[in-house]
Amino acid sequence: MKKAIYPGSFDPLTFGHLDMIERSASIVDELVVGVLNNSAKNSLFSLEERVSMIKEMTKDYPNVTVTSFNGLLVDHMREIGATIIVRGLRAVTDFEYELQIAQTNHVQEPGIETIFLTTNLKYSYLSSTIVKEFASYGGDISKFVPEQFIDRIYAKYNIK
Amino acid sequence: MKKAIYPGSFDPLTFGHLDMIERSASIVDELVVGVLNNSAKNSLFSLEERVSMIKEMTKDYPNVTVTSFNGLLVDHMREIGATIIVRGLRAVTDFEYELQIAQTNHVQEPGIETIFLTTNLKYSYLSSTIVKEFASYGGDISKFVPEQFIDRIYAKYNIK
Amino acid sequence: MKKAIYPGSFDPLTFGHLDMIERSASIVDELVVGVLNNSAKNSLFSLEERVSMIKEMTKDYPNVTVTSFNGLLVDHMREIGATIIVRGLRAVTDFEYELQIAQTNHVQEPGIETIFLTTNLKYSYLSSTIVKEFASYGGDISKFVPEQFIDRIYAKYNIK
Amino acid sequence: MKKAIYPGSFDPLTFGHLDMIERSASIVDELVVGVLNNSAKNSLFSLEERVSMIKEMTKDYPNVTVTSFNGLLVDHMREIGATIIVRGLRAVTDFEYELQIAQTNHVQEPGIETIFLTTNLKYSYLSSTIVKEFASYGGDISKFVPEQFIDRIYAKYNIK
Amino acid sequence: MKKAIYPGSFDPLTFGHLDMIERSASIVDELVVGVLNNSAKNSLFSLEERVSMIKEMTKDYPNVTVTSFNGLLVDHMREIGATIIVRGLRAVTDFEYELQIAQTNHVQEPGIETIFLTTNLKYSYLSSTIVKEFASYGGDISKFVPEQFIDRIYAKYNIK
Amino acid sequence: MKKAIYPGSFDPLTFGHLDMIERSASIVDELVVGVLNNSAKNSLFSLEERVSMIKEMTKDYPNVTVTSFNGLLVDHMREIGATIIVRGLRAVTDFEYELQIAQTNHVQEPGIETIFLTTNLKYSYLSSTIVKEFASYGGDISKFVPEQFIDRIYAKYNIK
Repeated sequence: MKKAIYPGSFDPLTFGHLDMIERSASIVDELVVGVLNNSAKNSLFSLEERVSMIKEMTKDYPNVTVTSFNGLLVDHMREIGATIIVRGLRAVTDFEYELQIAQTNHVQEPGIETIFLTTNLKYSYLSSTIVKEFASYGGDISKFVPEQFIDRIYAKYNIK
Repeated sequence: MKKAIYPGSFDPLTFGHLDMIERSASIVDELVVGVLNNSAKNSLFSLEERVSMIKEMTKDYPNVTVTSFNGLLVDHMREIGATIIVRGLRAVTDFEYELQIAQTNHVQEPGIETIFLTTNLKYSYLSSTIVKEFASYGGDISKFVPEQFIDRIYAKYNIK
Repeated sequence: MKKAIYPGSFDPLTFGHLDMIERSASIVDELVVGVLNNSAKNSLFSLEERVSMIKEMTKDYPNVTVTSFNGLLVDHMREIGATIIVRGLRAVTDFEYELQIAQTNHVQEPGIETIFLTTNLKYSYLSSTIVKEFASYGGDISKFVPEQFIDRIYAKYNIK
Repeated sequence: MKKAIYPGSFDPLTFGHLDMIERSASIVDELVVGVLNNSAKNSLFSLEERVSMIKEMTKDYPNVTVTSFNGLLVDHMREIGATIIVRGLRAVTDFEYELQIAQTNHVQEPGIETIFLTTNLKYSYLSSTIVKEFASYGGDISKFVPEQFIDRIYAKYNIK
Repeated sequence: MKKAIYPGSFDPLTFGHLDMIERSASIVDELVVGVLNNSAKNSLFSLEERVSMIKEMTKDYPNVTVTSFNGLLVDHMREIGATIIVRGLRAVTDFEYELQIAQTNHVQEPGIETIFLTTNLKYSYLSSTIVKEFASYGGDISKFVPEQFIDRIYAKYNIK
Repeated sequence: MKKAIYPGSFDPLTFGHLDMIERSASIVDELVVGVLNNSAKNSLFSLEERVSMIKEMTKDYPNVTVTSFNGLLVDHMREIGATIIVRGLRAVTDFEYELQIAQTNHVQEPGIETIFLTTNLKYSYLSSTIVKEFASYGGDISKFVPEQFIDRIYAKYNIK
């Protein structure tokens, strides 16, 4: 399979993202985790921190690399030679939004395909937004993110 | 990418199915179109006819083969050494049913992944059921199925 | 506005259908209530009974007539010179099915448009199927159908 | 909380149903598991077998009893003095159907309320239909139903 | 039934909320209406005003009390000894969001259950946001909120 | 048919909007395209620019006029004597939002009906938001908007 990209904000990386990366990497030949540098949205972690967190967790996967991009995903894919987008599907509202994006990308670049994987049942409720909401109140986030990130996340909210 | 299967009834094969086959074949290394022999459901075309119609239309794709199976899809995949299921997504109700099936298959065989492609906008309304309904009343089905199948479908309803 | 058709099985006519007829008739110039003669489905009331029940309830609307048809809706519309289909939308699953049908009809006959009205909140739960289920057990159906139909419906189940 | 009923076909009882019974029983004062005797649908297990299977699995819950009924749920509730219906929600299509039923029941009996619990993530894919499909092909059903039922289910399909 | 909480912003309280409170109070032993003090969102009414408006409307329900909280709902529930969350369901998008929240809360506190009631058909279109939009243009809000609140809401927009 | 209004922000007008205008104009006697002056949302084009762009593209439709309004749609309709709202439906989330708005408008003004048309398959992915996102990065928007608008849109982002 050609080169695939798994794009996202990963602010922060969750167990749900890691499950998606692991499963995608076992399907495709080469997987690029693409971190979106969305200047319009206030991110908790800087672009560098997010790239570094993903590298730390994926260093044992020989066919996974991490990049960052701003602008249009299709433009970035042309630059790095990727033709497949990998996305996770959790719920119906996800599905509709993803469908719209997939179709727009296909209209822009007919050579690009989007493949969807369903998220693991165990993590189907999980999102970076929920991690941030729980962390901001000092809630327990050990079921949401890898252990080594917990303190870094709390630190952003001056907790502990 | 490992061997993938695109399972279905294909009763009859539509332009929507062909679009899925073409796009899947360009993504995976080897694609098996698996025709379900569902004895419980009354099919318009026999299993042999359906297999033969798909072979006729896919003979120019070097990495596509056609098989038939009854019983559980996961059992058939084990037999033929396929680890990936390819499915199309058209609508929300599709999505929920497909999600349930994908999760059941994953529980049964954790090594199996289902990847979803969105159906082409042009064919998003199309289904074998609609083809049969239109054909049964002698309606125009030339926008739904390949030209060489039109008369064979009408013949099943003693039309023309 | 051109001639419009409101197609359905109306087996039996409910308050929800009547609300749709009343509102559609106030929007379009001429409304045809088209009763589908679906031989494949077992209907509780005969085609003649259903047509007659609708005529009885719509006789005071000067721009409403009642017809029956079998075969494709688009063929019947061509015969009677109607170019607009009126449908009610209650729920998401309705919506997806209706969307598929509307798009198929538009592909077959580009001159045909489908317009959707939302069902009245008061009747959003109501369907002919629910009426039949309640009636078959002798349940109270006075909130579902016009008073003059209640005994006729019970009679079909040999009740009272 | 008043007496509640958890209605269903339970053909057969799954881990998903048991999870719902356990959680409902911890919420309400008295829980009746009501087995629907739907003569129209062909059931795998007889009404007596289904009631007995549920009794076997719930004998340690002091506030759970098992009944069977045919006809309208609201009529049965009046007979046994229950005012609350407990239902599980898995997916959007579930939700719409359940909403329609809940609203119909509320129109019929304004004193009746339906409360919904979400199904456990672990069992969100699971249904009696899936159990039967897998069992009919001799598939592994040990993750779907209690151990003591496995052979009884296979026996219905003359397996083993 | 144990103590239940009905959480929300109630900015302002609508007829839809009151219907939910009345029906929940008839189901559970003790109902706490929990007003969320969400500092991030700009509210029309202050926390004190919102608590006071709900107290005014619920003073005749002997088993209803009103509290406010900030932070995580599960933390507040632990403080007040509540184990059940009551939520209303209106639509599919509601459903998915609520499901996600219910599952997150259950992962955090396995002893907590969320029960859903469907909103009354009459109020299924209604939300605090719609009340505010209509009021801001001087629109008629008498079908949305109790009479005694109308002038207080207009006053916030310097109307009348 | 009475006077109908097709309301929206049209920031900017897309091929999807034009398709809706053309099809609506062929159904109703008189169509008013109503441009919402939403001061709360930052628009890319001024109200005058948006009105002028629509006039430019609809000048050949004898029964189409363009107006702008702020405040409540129902108030504006009363002023111009329109009784029908035309809306497009693309997806399930559209549907639920539109349903809520249609029901609110109907509660406010029982004489007002909303009719929905499905969006053309070809444009079902398209929205003004997507046009703006692509344009802001200098992406190709020639499949989204009329040719004469392309440079005006890029100019807003100082591109080319």
